[in-house]
Amino acid sequence: MKRIYLDHAAATPVDPAVFKAMKPFFSEQFANPSSFHTDGLEVQRAVAAARKSIASIISAHDEEIIFCSGGTESDNLAIQGIVRAHKAHGNHVITSAIEHHAVLELLKRMEKKGEIELTVIGVDAEGIISPQEVISAIRPETVLISIMSANNEIGTIQPIAEIGRELLRYRKAHDGICPYFHTDACQYAGVASIDPEKSHADLITFNASKIYGPKGAGALYVRRGIKLEPMIIGGGHERGIRSGTENVPAIIGLAKAMELAHAGMEKENARLTKLRDRLIEGLLKIPKSRLNGHAEKRLPNNANITFLDIEGEAALLYLDAQGVRCSTGSACASSSLDPSHVILALGVSYEAAHGSLRFSLGHSTTKEEIETVIKIMPDIVKKLRHMSPVNLDMKYFEKMVSGKR
Amino acid sequence: MKRIYLDHAAATPVDPAVFKAMKPFFSEQFANPSSFHTDGLEVQRAVAAARKSIASIISAHDEEIIFCSGGTESDNLAIQGIVRAHKAHGNHVITSAIEHHAVLELLKRMEKKGEIELTVIGVDAEGIISPQEVISAIRPETVLISIMSANNEIGTIQPIAEIGRELLRYRKAHDGICPYFHTDACQYAGVASIDPEKSHADLITFNASKIYGPKGAGALYVRRGIKLEPMIIGGGHERGIRSGTENVPAIIGLAKAMELAHAGMEKENARLTKLRDRLIEGLLKIPKSRLNGHAEKRLPNNANITFLDIEGEAALLYLDAQGVRCSTGSACASSSLDPSHVILALGVSYEAAHGSLRFSLGHSTTKEEIETVIKIMPDIVKKLRHMSPVNLDMKYFEKMVSGKR
Repeated sequence: MKRIYLDHAAATPVDPAVFKAMKPFFSEQFANPSSFHTDGLEVQRAVAAARKSIASIISAHDEEIIFCSGGTESDNLAIQGIVRAHKAHGNHVITSAIEHHAVLELLKRMEKKGEIELTVIGVDAEGIISPQEVISAIRPETVLISIMSANNEIGTIQPIAEIGRELLRYRKAHDGICPYFHTDACQYAGVASIDPEKSHADLITFNASKIYGPKGAGALYVRRGIKLEPMIIGGGHERGIRSGTENVPAIIGLAKAMELAHAGMEKENARLTKLRDRLIEGLLKIPKSRLNGHAEKRLPNNANITFLDIEGEAALLYLDAQGVRCSTGSACASSSLDPSHVILALGVSYEAAHGSLRFSLGHSTTKEEIETVIKIMPDIVKKLRHMSPVNLDMKYFEKMVSGKR
Repeated sequence: MKRIYLDHAAATPVDPAVFKAMKPFFSEQFANPSSFHTDGLEVQRAVAAARKSIASIISAHDEEIIFCSGGTESDNLAIQGIVRAHKAHGNHVITSAIEHHAVLELLKRMEKKGEIELTVIGVDAEGIISPQEVISAIRPETVLISIMSANNEIGTIQPIAEIGRELLRYRKAHDGICPYFHTDACQYAGVASIDPEKSHADLITFNASKIYGPKGAGALYVRRGIKLEPMIIGGGHERGIRSGTENVPAIIGLAKAMELAHAGMEKENARLTKLRDRLIEGLLKIPKSRLNGHAEKRLPNNANITFLDIEGEAALLYLDAQGVRCSTGSACASSSLDPSHVILALGVSYEAAHGSLRFSLGHSTTKEEIETVIKIMPDIVKKLRHMSPVNLDMKYFEKMVSGKR
């Protein structure tokens, strides 16, 4: 049985070209980049070149790129770093209800410990955040706004540049530099260029493992002059913001993955958008199904669909048995029995949210694969609905999944 | 010109067998181990097997192993984790003057911020910490003792088991569970088995990149039942203690590196000890030279020697030009112009400390390489001394390097 991998939002394979770029740095150019000899300096130069390449892709300065161990650490560094370095300004943070756990769970924990006051902005029925709502939530003591660029579960692309522009206006009017603006671009960086100038984001989180780079590789863009309190202290690597011997192959891999994504973006986005729309069209023919998230303002590779009256986990197992790999919510929360906080934020009921599936497409995805999923899904839903203890009529379904629409 | 790599304490190459074990997890078994489908579960099982293997090597329970991004993060997690989770008990920490920056700089920063009170224990002239001195420093409010197993610069092996035993006695007598005991075993784990039961350490830091595993791979052993405040919050990975998608190849690589080290330890230690002693013997024939650190209680691969009247960095460049890669202090502090805090802790003067070189041997080191270094070093020292503005007599030398001896 052919495997159909539609879980690219959880993890992408390392691209062969990325792996090729990384390979020499395991057993050949293995020296510590801080070592003060030829071998060390060679590796140091490779790290510097990777940093320069990433900076150039996002139109930033080299020293604005801080390497770390992945998206979660990068989010944590941005948030803990700003909050702890700017206590004198205030302790209020604004975020959205659909952020990744690395943002939302962190902020909730910091709120619980009394370290911050937190405002969580909701989303509309299509999963989009309102810039006006974000700006309205600003208080004099707001130090940070953290809004993701694109959602990992429902794929919605947020109006980051608009939020950035409004925020700039606010800061100018209030003669201040706070609040700072952080955006998690883990899912977004693979499909679009992120320009800190155009988005006005002060801090941007990048992650290699969602864009065909290696796991354990991330970066935080930090705008020049912004002070961050480091989380990990030691030898003073990464300008003292992130200590620990540089993970050289990971850094090389992140840079190569970003280069490849940047170069092939337009063509691949067009290809994926077509496949995605065909998948959505095909699956929505199943009765009592609903697309989660805005139909156009979404990642080209994301289709998230709720089938009422089924258990998402059960559907996942049925699909798996037929070779199809997808997911319910995010992989990061898969051990939880609760339905996705993102789907719930759309206004979908608790019961209906349980029946959500995320199909995330990628480089390997073909038209044939999409047609196969469209072909096998109706039977799976039928089978599961037959087994379901509740069998709801269409009127009830409308109420359950209508969300805020 | 043949390269002679004698900087294994800064970085080791990834062993071919380690790389082979890691390789499938980049582009083939690339799924997210939290993904709830066949591919994800397969990877999850591989991670579980790696955890079990490490646990078995150190005679621990699987759930006592927390994977993270390296030695520095592991040290930080142990220290920040214990201090922040056990504030109710007290805020006093004991450490030594020769710890790695990931311990000492972190603790100094926490002290400066008023988060902890810190006692820094000195070492004797041979670079050994006194267990009695550690135990005597305990106060009712002491929450943590952090003492490294073996030093990264001078290679001295510390009496960890003795400290552990004394501490256990103290805790029993005081009817308490604090202070907890952390040891950084980054350099030590490659040459000796670390048994939490025998050492009585509650937390142990491991690092792959010093033992022929990959960079960006570390682990913290945390004794069952000990509460740690996580540093990085998110999807709740690693029992909620360290969030972020597991760096699967790194985890597989760490486990394989520990397996290999464990299996080949005795033979390789004997081989390296012989080479090390020959190197020390050869280099100490150079006038006004001194071995730093205890002659026997030291890592089998470490020779750290002070040559009075020379600048270590200059010697390093001369050696480099002849193909020999070594270092002055630790790679992590190589950008600093200050002499090593470890050499200074031995009582060596500031001026003399500047002339220290660390040669760290490894799997690739041969007798021929050692003889080459012994052959070329006298001329280099002579040349540098000739250039030196000061030319000291032997009496002055004795005073400068005598340390506490």
